[in-house]
Amino acid sequence: MTLTCLFDINETVLDLSALDGLFTDLFGDPQSRTLWFAQTLQNAMSAELCGRHAPFETQGQAALEMIGARFGRTLTAADKQRVADALKRLPAHADVRAGLDFARAQGVRCIAFSNNARAATRAQLEYAGLSDAFADILSAEDAGASKPVTATYRQAASSLGQPAEDLWLIAVHAWDIAGAQAAGFKGALLQRRPDQVANPLAPPQVTAGTLQEAVARILAHEGRG
Amino acid sequence: MTLTCLFDINETVLDLSALDGLFTDLFGDPQSRTLWFAQTLQNAMSAELCGRHAPFETQGQAALEMIGARFGRTLTAADKQRVADALKRLPAHADVRAGLDFARAQGVRCIAFSNNARAATRAQLEYAGLSDAFADILSAEDAGASKPVTATYRQAASSLGQPAEDLWLIAVHAWDIAGAQAAGFKGALLQRRPDQVANPLAPPQVTAGTLQEAVARILAHEGRG
Repeated sequence: MTLTCLFDINETVLDLSALDGLFTDLFGDPQSRTLWFAQTLQNAMSAELCGRHAPFETQGQAALEMIGARFGRTLTAADKQRVADALKRLPAHADVRAGLDFARAQGVRCIAFSNNARAATRAQLEYAGLSDAFADILSAEDAGASKPVTATYRQAASSLGQPAEDLWLIAVHAWDIAGAQAAGFKGALLQRRPDQVANPLAPPQVTAGTLQEAVARILAHEGRG
Repeated sequence: MTLTCLFDINETVLDLSALDGLFTDLFGDPQSRTLWFAQTLQNAMSAELCGRHAPFETQGQAALEMIGARFGRTLTAADKQRVADALKRLPAHADVRAGLDFARAQGVRCIAFSNNARAATRAQLEYAGLSDAFADILSAEDAGASKPVTATYRQAASSLGQPAEDLWLIAVHAWDIAGAQAAGFKGALLQRRPDQVANPLAPPQVTAGTLQEAVARILAHEGRG
C-alpha cells in the first residue's frame, strides 16, 4: 500500500511571513498580515457555517478590506492586486525541500492540498521551486467547500482513490488536523512556532518541529520507520 | 408587531477586557486574553464544521490549554477555575445600560442570545446588574450548535415564536451578523473599537458606535424612528 501524505500549503509549506513588509506598507502595522490571515480563516469558516461558501481567494480579499477598515486605510484596486501577486510569490519554509525529498525517497506519495484554487496553488508551487515535489495538487474547490468542512477531505480521498484511513494530513493548523481527522484521516501537526499548538479536543496522531521529522514520525507510526 | 432584538453577550454586552489582568498574570502576555477568545471562536467554528459540536465553555477551556502551550505555561485546575469564575464576573460595557433602557422605553423586546450555556449567561447578567433588562435568555445550547450555525438562529426564532424576518441581532462580531442574516434575521453591527469591522460579504443592515445608537438606527430602519 502506498503511503500518501497530503500537505497543507499556506503557512505549512509556504512562508506567509514574506508578506509582512507589504502588509506593513499597506496598513502601517507589522501585525496586519497575521491579522489578515486569521480574518480570512474566520470569514471562510463562518461562511461555511452559514451555507454561503465563497472561494478562499474571495474570503481573503474581503478580509483585506476588513483589515483596511480596522487600520483606517482604504485599499485601491492596485493595492489588492499587489497582495494577490505577492501571494503567488511566497518562499517555501527552510525545512520544506529536505522534508519533501525525504518523503519521496521513502516512497511516500506527496499531495498538495490547499484551500486556494488549484491554479493559484500551482503558481505558488512553481514560484517556490516545488513543482516537482508533489504528485498532484488538490484544491478545496473540488468539493465546493473550504477546509475544515468534512466533505472537502472526503472529496480529496475519493479523488486519490484511497480510503481516508490510509491518508495523512500534515499541517501547522489545529483546525485542519481536526477536519482531516473528522473525515477519517490521520493528522500530523507541524510546530515550527510557539503559536502552532495542538487542540486537546482533536489531538494530532504525531507532532514534529520540521517537515522531515513529521514524515519520519508518520513512517514510524505506520510501522515503516 | 413587537420589535424584538437579540443581543450577543460576550464582547457585545459584557466587557471581556476585564479579564486582561488575570490573563497577563497567567500567561505573561497582555495580548493573551484576545488570543484566547479568538482561539475559542476558531475552535468552536472548526468543531461545527467537523460535525463535532462541544459546548462553548468546553471550547474555551481547550483554548485556554492552547494559549498555555503557546506561552509555555501549564495551567493548573485552579488556574482554569479562576478563568471560569472571572467569566461570570464581567462588567457591562459603559453604553449598555443606557442602550437597553432606551430600547425597552421604545417598546423593543430585548433578548440575550449567547453561545454560552443559559445558566452561565444568567449568572453573567446577574453579576453585571442586567437581569431586569432582558425579557429572556436564549442559548446556543438549545440548538446543540454554536453561532454562527444557521440552525442556532432558527431555533432562537422558533422559541420566540416570531419569524426570523422580524428579528434583529445586535453584535460586535461580523461572523455573528453573517450567521443571523443567513437565517433571515437583520443585523446591527456595533463598532466600539477599530477591530469591530463589517464583512463586505455579509454587510450589516445598520452599524453604530453605541448600543443606544444601534437601537435608534434599527427603529429608523423599521420606520419607527
